[in-house]
Amino acid sequence: MPVSEFSLIDRYFAVQGLHRADVALGIGDDCAVLRPPADQQLVVTLDTLVADVHFFAATDPENLGHKALAVNLSDLAAMGATPAWATLGLTLPKVDEPWLACFMKGLFGLADRHGVQLVGGDTTYGPNTAITMQAHGFVPAGAALRRDGARPGDLVYVTGALGDAGLALAVAGGQTTVPTEHHRYVQARLERPEPRIAQGLALRGIASAAIDISDGLAQDLGHILERSGVGVRLDVAYLPLSPALIASLNQDAALTTALTGGDDYELCFTVPPERIAQLETVAAAWDCRCTRIGAITAEPGLRPIRADGSAFFLERLGYDHFG
Amino acid sequence: MPVSEFSLIDRYFAVQGLHRADVALGIGDDCAVLRPPADQQLVVTLDTLVADVHFFAATDPENLGHKALAVNLSDLAAMGATPAWATLGLTLPKVDEPWLACFMKGLFGLADRHGVQLVGGDTTYGPNTAITMQAHGFVPAGAALRRDGARPGDLVYVTGALGDAGLALAVAGGQTTVPTEHHRYVQARLERPEPRIAQGLALRGIASAAIDISDGLAQDLGHILERSGVGVRLDVAYLPLSPALIASLNQDAALTTALTGGDDYELCFTVPPERIAQLETVAAAWDCRCTRIGAITAEPGLRPIRADGSAFFLERLGYDHFG
Repeated sequence: MPVSEFSLIDRYFAVQGLHRADVALGIGDDCAVLRPPADQQLVVTLDTLVADVHFFAATDPENLGHKALAVNLSDLAAMGATPAWATLGLTLPKVDEPWLACFMKGLFGLADRHGVQLVGGDTTYGPNTAITMQAHGFVPAGAALRRDGARPGDLVYVTGALGDAGLALAVAGGQTTVPTEHHRYVQARLERPEPRIAQGLALRGIASAAIDISDGLAQDLGHILERSGVGVRLDVAYLPLSPALIASLNQDAALTTALTGGDDYELCFTVPPERIAQLETVAAAWDCRCTRIGAITAEPGLRPIRADGSAFFLERLGYDHFG
Repeated sequence: MPVSEFSLIDRYFAVQGLHRADVALGIGDDCAVLRPPADQQLVVTLDTLVADVHFFAATDPENLGHKALAVNLSDLAAMGATPAWATLGLTLPKVDEPWLACFMKGLFGLADRHGVQLVGGDTTYGPNTAITMQAHGFVPAGAALRRDGARPGDLVYVTGALGDAGLALAVAGGQTTVPTEHHRYVQARLERPEPRIAQGLALRGIASAAIDISDGLAQDLGHILERSGVGVRLDVAYLPLSPALIASLNQDAALTTALTGGDDYELCFTVPPERIAQLETVAAAWDCRCTRIGAITAEPGLRPIRADGSAFFLERLGYDHFG
């Protein structure tokens, strides 16, 4: 007997253990009814993942559930927002209950860790698996980290290491290989990115601009430059590379992957010189690296520079969905 | 030269004329930043439309843009919410700029009429066109129209006429025909539904429960019954049928279509007897019919009854995505 959309809701979506006090009405009506805090602004983001475009159809469903939420929480992190609620639009070619159970386990696992409640959604049939998630969070009025606040003289930082997800994609595409001892790390960096929520929160009042690196550092930093009307000098020798990336690619290939590989979900942000001491203080408590990689310039453009002062040439900046 | 995702945003998504004062940051950053009113609850809904599942791929894109927002505004209407903001997840197999221009024209046309600002989204490549929209609105605390408030003795009403969209789908499927003079009306009912926002707002404090009829009256009313722990006696002779439906189908087929046809986007709601005078007063100002079709019973189950008191038999209740 075919399972109905409505029993799927009861079995897989309305079963999260976490219940937030600010959810007046969750899954199971025409809409969710929510109580945003009176003294905060609401921060909203939406991301779509399509099978065989953004993920391999055979991806472990638990990892996929994790990632579908992680990419949205990463956008909240880039605004310095506290995560709160999520909604899920799920399109499936068939009802595969074990797949769905694993997918929701991965999603709820990450959601529970960040206090996020799934409050609604829509599950429909479609020929191709696709996931559209939306996440909601809060920031105090005026505290959101935007793309348009970078000023000449600000220093440029990134969290974590760059290029690992790009490396995993290159391995999957048969373009390179990774030493066995690094397999698990590289795959996890692609499939289970950790949204930098704590870092985004700590950067309120410190960063002048921030973005998450989902389409590649060069391209995403380019959005900060464009919105802020500035340029950047990037010291490529300072880019934080993982042991896995260094062990797998020659130096220029590693740097190119760090600059242009997509799916990294680290934060890139700018800090005015007078706030560097504050940054050093908060970053000392982070569970990931915080690395200075360049400086904002009045002269427009993105200029990756080698240690000897020569230009590091990039053929393309990053990932474009219709490029 | 291929057009990039980013120039699409500038050309088609960030061009709405309407600007709400409560949008601190709209399209163009990692997230939107919004200011919900301090004295209201936030109401959130999400709907996915997939090509060749929820709409024909050849559908006029302006109508499709209208409908993608309309189905979400219809959910807000069913909660009695005032619409405010929307986000758009759009998956496209290729960049067809004239198609996109028409789609956004239809979407913005409806959005402007209801004071809704598009504040964010995600545009990605995928093999199959799909649209996931989310809409946000407000209700005063505790005023949301829910599915679980129907009580025995409450009367059951619907807005507008029923079954027209189901008729249009039957015509498209070659199962029936419609007299020429009704073509335009029936097609518009399928492709350009008008969300019953004004009706939903007027029903605050009057309706004990409400739902929008997107999967067919019988099935959607069934959700009210299940959530409220009640049953219903439906007087099928009272179902509001359009002249087009009456002219196209025999009586029993017309009633079955009215009871089970999907895509109607009318409101079904229940009203306690002591509030009927209030309902009559507000409904007199509506631009659509308001018709009493039955009564809530303590005895569970959905019982459609003919004028002679005999049961009206239904083979299925409505549309199920995985049925």
